[in-house]
Amino acid sequence: MALTPLIMTIHERVVRPRFSSRLKPPPADTIEKNDHGVIIAGFGRFGQVVGRLLIANGIRPTVLEQDAAQIEILRRFGFKVFYGNAGRLELLQAAGAEEARLLILALDDAEVTLQIAEEVRRNFPKLTILARARDRTHAYELMRRGVTLVIRETFGSAMDMGQEALRQLGFRPHRANRLARLFRQHDERAMKEMFNISGDEKAYILESRRQFELVAQVMQNDKEEAAEESEPDENSPTR
Amino acid sequence: MALTPLIMTIHERVVRPRFSSRLKPPPADTIEKNDHGVIIAGFGRFGQVVGRLLIANGIRPTVLEQDAAQIEILRRFGFKVFYGNAGRLELLQAAGAEEARLLILALDDAEVTLQIAEEVRRNFPKLTILARARDRTHAYELMRRGVTLVIRETFGSAMDMGQEALRQLGFRPHRANRLARLFRQHDERAMKEMFNISGDEKAYILESRRQFELVAQVMQNDKEEAAEESEPDENSPTR
Repeated sequence: MALTPLIMTIHERVVRPRFSSRLKPPPADTIEKNDHGVIIAGFGRFGQVVGRLLIANGIRPTVLEQDAAQIEILRRFGFKVFYGNAGRLELLQAAGAEEARLLILALDDAEVTLQIAEEVRRNFPKLTILARARDRTHAYELMRRGVTLVIRETFGSAMDMGQEALRQLGFRPHRANRLARLFRQHDERAMKEMFNISGDEKAYILESRRQFELVAQVMQNDKEEAAEESEPDENSPTR
Repeated sequence: MALTPLIMTIHERVVRPRFSSRLKPPPADTIEKNDHGVIIAGFGRFGQVVGRLLIANGIRPTVLEQDAAQIEILRRFGFKVFYGNAGRLELLQAAGAEEARLLILALDDAEVTLQIAEEVRRNFPKLTILARARDRTHAYELMRRGVTLVIRETFGSAMDMGQEALRQLGFRPHRANRLARLFRQHDERAMKEMFNISGDEKAYILESRRQFELVAQVMQNDKEEAAEESEPDENSPTR
């Protein structure tokens, strides 16, 4: 890979190796609560997108990030970010965890996310947690700890890619969008249902295959509906 | 973390460490082309979601995966997957790259993705590539290599999380959805525009801040529109 210009790493990437030797750790921050009761832990490529959407809508989250290099960059981009480890209770407390409305766990580290979720459930039982999961496995681990608002970190983009693939293969944008939406609804429902049997290998595989046949059936039925709506050219776009 | 039951690793996770000692590498596969002219390289948590959407819609991609343990699991789940490194030209050729309609690069490794993209551009110039990017930086690298259909691997899920956060803060589902859609449109347009200055640090930071103010303005204007449509309770959901 060609040398990536420094600037390009900013929005969504941590440039630890290049920066950390030059930076001394920032002084201990005095965390301030925000008016809107939202805390974001982790402000890398994932947390930033969440945060930017909130900020653009007038909501000012209290952002905690423990990578000094990342903070340095974020500040140049105009973000207010506090230095610190969201796993430390006193830090979450300072950020207002006691009375906050929402804690967004957007860390890259799946293991640390589980630890924080457990600590928070125990110490701030009223606080709603919205968590980034690595994958389905990690999502189940979070659900087991009582975190029900879980977003798998690549699922949404994979759905976007699938939708784009359908378009490239000749599906109309509107139709590709609809099929992706149906698929997603089915997948999210199935995931919740299958949580209960996630410890039983055989049952899980069987149910997974059954669910997949079900969703294919849903797509197929929807195709027929589309045909009735006279969109015949979209029924065999790949031939 | 509690020991994860084996079964749970299946859908979206590679269990290399547990499996690879037990498995001998599979015999060299005879790759078959598929009727629909779609090749997917990489069938981990990301590629599987893309593939499942396509398969559910009657499209049978030729899937290449180079992790033997992953393939073993995928086959138990009923997926037809070929063992092999998508970076090898003769393998892509066997998969039908010459006449395929679409190559989906869904690998986890950003560096390998760039290498394959370059090779494919050179050897199969007519083949459309749809690529998974690690982040904005990596997306720019792909664009520099002539790949224009690029999906950042966590962007979609981060948008989903932002939308869910808005809902949790009292925005109506329909409105949260609309705001996320506006934000996404803006971000994707801005990314394409900013590609041209991505090598110039100062200009990039300035433009990034300007774009962020722009999108906040768009959200704000949209709020006002919403107010005119008499949805007054959604204008200050977090107070």
